[in-house]
Amino acid sequence: MNYKMMGRFLSMILAVETIFMIPPTVIGFFEGASKTTLSFVLSIVIGLAIAGVLALLTRGAEKRNFYAREGLLCVGIGWLALSLVGALPLWLSGEFPLFIDAFFEIVSGFTTTGSSVSPNVEALSKAVNYWRCFTHWVGGMGVLVFLLAIVPEDGKGSGFTMHLLRAESPGPDVGKLVPKMRRTAATLYVTYIVMTVITFLFLIAGNMSVFDAVCTAFGTAGTGGFGIKVDSMAGYSPYIQWVCAIFMVLFGINFNCYYLLILKKISGVLRDEELRLYLLTILGSSALIALNIGAYYKTVGETIRHAAFQVASIITTTGYATTDFDLWPTFSKTILLFLMVIGACAGSTGGGIKCARVLLLVKGLLRNISQMLHPNKVQVIRVNKKPVSERILTGTNAYLCAYVIILVISTLIVSIDGQSFTTTFTAVLSCFNNVGPGLDAVGPTCHFGELSVLSKLVLSFDMLAGRLEIFPMLMLFNHRAWKSN
Amino acid sequence: MNYKMMGRFLSMILAVETIFMIPPTVIGFFEGASKTTLSFVLSIVIGLAIAGVLALLTRGAEKRNFYAREGLLCVGIGWLALSLVGALPLWLSGEFPLFIDAFFEIVSGFTTTGSSVSPNVEALSKAVNYWRCFTHWVGGMGVLVFLLAIVPEDGKGSGFTMHLLRAESPGPDVGKLVPKMRRTAATLYVTYIVMTVITFLFLIAGNMSVFDAVCTAFGTAGTGGFGIKVDSMAGYSPYIQWVCAIFMVLFGINFNCYYLLILKKISGVLRDEELRLYLLTILGSSALIALNIGAYYKTVGETIRHAAFQVASIITTTGYATTDFDLWPTFSKTILLFLMVIGACAGSTGGGIKCARVLLLVKGLLRNISQMLHPNKVQVIRVNKKPVSERILTGTNAYLCAYVIILVISTLIVSIDGQSFTTTFTAVLSCFNNVGPGLDAVGPTCHFGELSVLSKLVLSFDMLAGRLEIFPMLMLFNHRAWKSN
Repeated sequence: MNYKMMGRFLSMILAVETIFMIPPTVIGFFEGASKTTLSFVLSIVIGLAIAGVLALLTRGAEKRNFYAREGLLCVGIGWLALSLVGALPLWLSGEFPLFIDAFFEIVSGFTTTGSSVSPNVEALSKAVNYWRCFTHWVGGMGVLVFLLAIVPEDGKGSGFTMHLLRAESPGPDVGKLVPKMRRTAATLYVTYIVMTVITFLFLIAGNMSVFDAVCTAFGTAGTGGFGIKVDSMAGYSPYIQWVCAIFMVLFGINFNCYYLLILKKISGVLRDEELRLYLLTILGSSALIALNIGAYYKTVGETIRHAAFQVASIITTTGYATTDFDLWPTFSKTILLFLMVIGACAGSTGGGIKCARVLLLVKGLLRNISQMLHPNKVQVIRVNKKPVSERILTGTNAYLCAYVIILVISTLIVSIDGQSFTTTFTAVLSCFNNVGPGLDAVGPTCHFGELSVLSKLVLSFDMLAGRLEIFPMLMLFNHRAWKSN
Repeated sequence: MNYKMMGRFLSMILAVETIFMIPPTVIGFFEGASKTTLSFVLSIVIGLAIAGVLALLTRGAEKRNFYAREGLLCVGIGWLALSLVGALPLWLSGEFPLFIDAFFEIVSGFTTTGSSVSPNVEALSKAVNYWRCFTHWVGGMGVLVFLLAIVPEDGKGSGFTMHLLRAESPGPDVGKLVPKMRRTAATLYVTYIVMTVITFLFLIAGNMSVFDAVCTAFGTAGTGGFGIKVDSMAGYSPYIQWVCAIFMVLFGINFNCYYLLILKKISGVLRDEELRLYLLTILGSSALIALNIGAYYKTVGETIRHAAFQVASIITTTGYATTDFDLWPTFSKTILLFLMVIGACAGSTGGGIKCARVLLLVKGLLRNISQMLHPNKVQVIRVNKKPVSERILTGTNAYLCAYVIILVISTLIVSIDGQSFTTTFTAVLSCFNNVGPGLDAVGPTCHFGELSVLSKLVLSFDMLAGRLEIFPMLMLFNHRAWKSN
């Protein structure tokens, strides 16, 4: 393990995080929340102090090529450090009296989960609400990707950046963006910023207040879903709900597609198998749910809106709600639970297993069945007409396996709390897939504050594992990954 | 598709089934249940008529080597035919007024599930109760395996028998029994019969009535779990409950182990990794549950007995109950749910994913993690020190994938019934893993009779898919499998 390089890297991301804390400090100052403002200032000082000490300790870090495992470890440690320092202002301000609650909340933010431990988010200061929503935004595209986009590349560290980008960006590697890492990162962020601004403008056009629009745009773009209202999105106008629904779907699409659109390769986008699966799943699920919940709402328009919004919110793993879907019939709730697992497209800000992986798993299964019929025929799996390597297929299977094992162990530990099975299972499912709300006692009108410290720790791990696609978090517990070469 | 050979094969298994129906006919005659006796006679006549017609139609069937897909299809069709004819006496006697209920009940019997649609099994005739429990026994080891054990082998059809045996016996092919198929089948059945007789004798020694002991021995040996009492095993003495618990565990062990014991290769048994995993899981789960439910029972002995019995019953996918575990805390219930999924050992009468597969999946995952650390190192997975082929690993991954997909689709369809999510999910989990009881409205004191016809059909499919390890049932829906070569 190249500890010096890791330390240098931690120092950099903590420094960047303190810069991100300046806007909420300013907001806190102007709204007159002096204790909160002070806690942000203090957090910035602490963050800078740690970053400074790390920078001093790691002067002259040897710049050699990074190993993949070092990339994985750095990402895992990096996100833990970001969350620990990011939780400081929430805790120091007293708005989240327990550190574990502040930590859970900010992990939920960075991982774009949106599960909250706060029973009344409207009682929080604007500074804290801004910080909660901003962590969604930066967590959605990736904190390290951001770092890569702004830090100059010097050639030597290219293995470093490549492994980091791979470890942090979601989905199996089917089709890469532009080869130059820094350009990739910058392209992603520019697209992301432009789309967020468009979301913001559409929301403003619906007479949303500027503060609400900024927070909602952050939450939508990062597919995070922290509410700044107790009733999430239920109180806003149908126009705003539709804007939100459409942009959630757009942010759940692989950003490669937007890159192809910029290059005017429209046919490539239209033929993208993952995109088709994603959109068809959204349409099909919305239709089934609308048929199922017709009796619950007055007009067909209202029914369709609630069905489409909830489907968009859950499959993109955002987690906003316009209605209490925990009251819906079991069929609709079950559809939503499985949408949580499927999740959005690879290379988007959404969570879940990802449509691309579902596609690979199904294709792998079909090949296996076909091989039972024709045992001697060699069959290559193709996605978008390109052959998929066996390495990626094995990796996807290992992912499913790790996914199931973590789901099982987490559910077991959280079940010690003695909540209902539905609560326990959906809490884990929701956090692990970075969705936000579950069912029953963690339904859309409830919160996660009642759970035990142990459950909150497990769910925090699940949120990080879900966002970082499991392996960076597993590596933290693998003593062999820590060994020097 | 070699339709003639398939017809001949169907004719044989239906003929064997009618022979199995003679004992319940005799029992019905002596207990004086004339309508039931008549319905068994009628079912025998119908079964023989179909077998006869099929035999006539398929005279001179070409004896060529079978393809694997034909073996899979035969097993799927064979089990469907067995269930359809086996359901006749239940329906004709009027003890199960709806044919779908009779079909569900007997599928539950043959697949050793043990989920019942009957609200009061004590009201059923002894003939029907005997038949229900006997289907567990013959279904546990396999109807086709039985056929293979008694039908003379003529060399030419060896591909046929091999593919049938492979398709019907549970678990990935890690380590095969004796090479000669007929000897394998006969060895299995002799071991099975001897162990069933020992179970019976132990039960008789506890003052159980002969009829109860026969039915309970059948249910225990086949890891089926149909109760002949409304309260399942709760009313029997602690001695009988312990006998049952221990024999359930023994019948959940890979029968290869008993074969090795006969050959006095004890060290091979002791070092068997699957057996170790299986026994450790039982001990660990029993201990955790006993600690969790201490407050529910008067003495430590009672607590341990209930914990151990339920764990043994669920991991072996038998499904007997000595207490209403639906009232236990969520932690204990969650452990039981995951034991359902794990299931017993490969090559036993138990269901579930099987400990051998869990072992392979975990080892595959660990290899994948290890390959992230050392990308260029070739790593072979070993079980019991023998290398496992990549083909088996790929097959196991495909199995997990098919398992998850069937679980998801079944849960979705059953959720249309509008039962609670816990009921819906655990009903599917329990049927698919051939366990028996679920939680909530399908808990150990409840029954499956209230579900819709659609749900009963889906759950019947799940039971068959679970017992036959998915692929024979999937092949039935694959038009390419039906094509002639």
